[in-house]
Amino acid sequence: MSVILDFSMYPLDKGESLSPYVARSIKIIQESGLPYEFRSMGTSIEGEWEQVMAVVKRCFETMRQDCNRVVLSLKADYRQGPTGRMQRKVESVKEKL
Amino acid sequence: MSVILDFSMYPLDKGESLSPYVARSIKIIQESGLPYEFRSMGTSIEGEWEQVMAVVKRCFETMRQDCNRVVLSLKADYRQGPTGRMQRKVESVKEKL
Amino acid sequence: MSVILDFSMYPLDKGESLSPYVARSIKIIQESGLPYEFRSMGTSIEGEWEQVMAVVKRCFETMRQDCNRVVLSLKADYRQGPTGRMQRKVESVKEKL
Amino acid sequence: MSVILDFSMYPLDKGESLSPYVARSIKIIQESGLPYEFRSMGTSIEGEWEQVMAVVKRCFETMRQDCNRVVLSLKADYRQGPTGRMQRKVESVKEKL
Repeated sequence: MSVILDFSMYPLDKGESLSPYVARSIKIIQESGLPYEFRSMGTSIEGEWEQVMAVVKRCFETMRQDCNRVVLSLKADYRQGPTGRMQRKVESVKEKL
Repeated sequence: MSVILDFSMYPLDKGESLSPYVARSIKIIQESGLPYEFRSMGTSIEGEWEQVMAVVKRCFETMRQDCNRVVLSLKADYRQGPTGRMQRKVESVKEKL
Repeated sequence: MSVILDFSMYPLDKGESLSPYVARSIKIIQESGLPYEFRSMGTSIEGEWEQVMAVVKRCFETMRQDCNRVVLSLKADYRQGPTGRMQRKVESVKEKL
Repeated sequence: MSVILDFSMYPLDKGESLSPYVARSIKIIQESGLPYEFRSMGTSIEGEWEQVMAVVKRCFETMRQDCNRVVLSLKADYRQGPTGRMQRKVESVKEKL
């Protein structure tokens, strides 16, 4: 069950500057070896459900080790058929512009 | 790592009436034995990360068995301290109204 | 264009206890006179697009007056047909359980 | 009140291939003249609250003209200070990697 997953997470007790926390998550994502898109409002990864959820859990666990409250926002998109959709979805729209 | 998790999911290829699909998910949630709040725009459950994510996965797996495309939207909230927050959060706000 | 809208918002610079901020939003929602569901992970309101978005804006504006950073998460659901869906959606699922 | 807003929307009654609908939204976003990031799971735009919400409304209105049911998912991020955050947020994290 391959999915594209888009997520962001915030500690609520660390003030308004969060880039050190985000950088820690991006490192975890990079170490996973999964394809990813990193943008200002969230990061997308593509892979099997178990793989992508393991990455989200690792990011969440790491953040809560030194944060008392953490919120996560996540979207997942499954479509029957071949993987590699993260790139194809964007291309398919661009062809129509 | 106990969290409150709020989620909703939609098949994109089954038309605009989705209550039979939602009912199937609610049954899965009820069978989990976890405390839950079911409302018009999503369902919240509380439990350990592994428990709540297992419920989400079961709902997602069940939906995609007869749907070609499924989207999931999810929020999670972790806070250090005792469980039972799903109820306490609401009470704590109501006391201040 | 009547919609059901579900939302939650968090200040990122006020620490982990947020019920006073949530209570302020609930008061704004109550003053709007729109039907609403208040739950642990968010609040749903139903009304015309302009009405519900005006409520969200008022909550957001009020929060940012004394918060340096605020994040908002929102879902909207439009379906052609009569209003009063917030209640009917729940009933329609319960009938199938 | 300048915000970064990230959103995606889906018709529920048009089947699993949605790129023509997404392309229509991207054209509306491009016509707005606001800075934007388009990616596989959503699009981010930056501007004053009224500006970005007007774009979302135009996309939503356009989609529902020929769709019986539409769902919208949206995140907004406000931070006190200068605009241009969409780019700076990404750079600030990349410096820390």
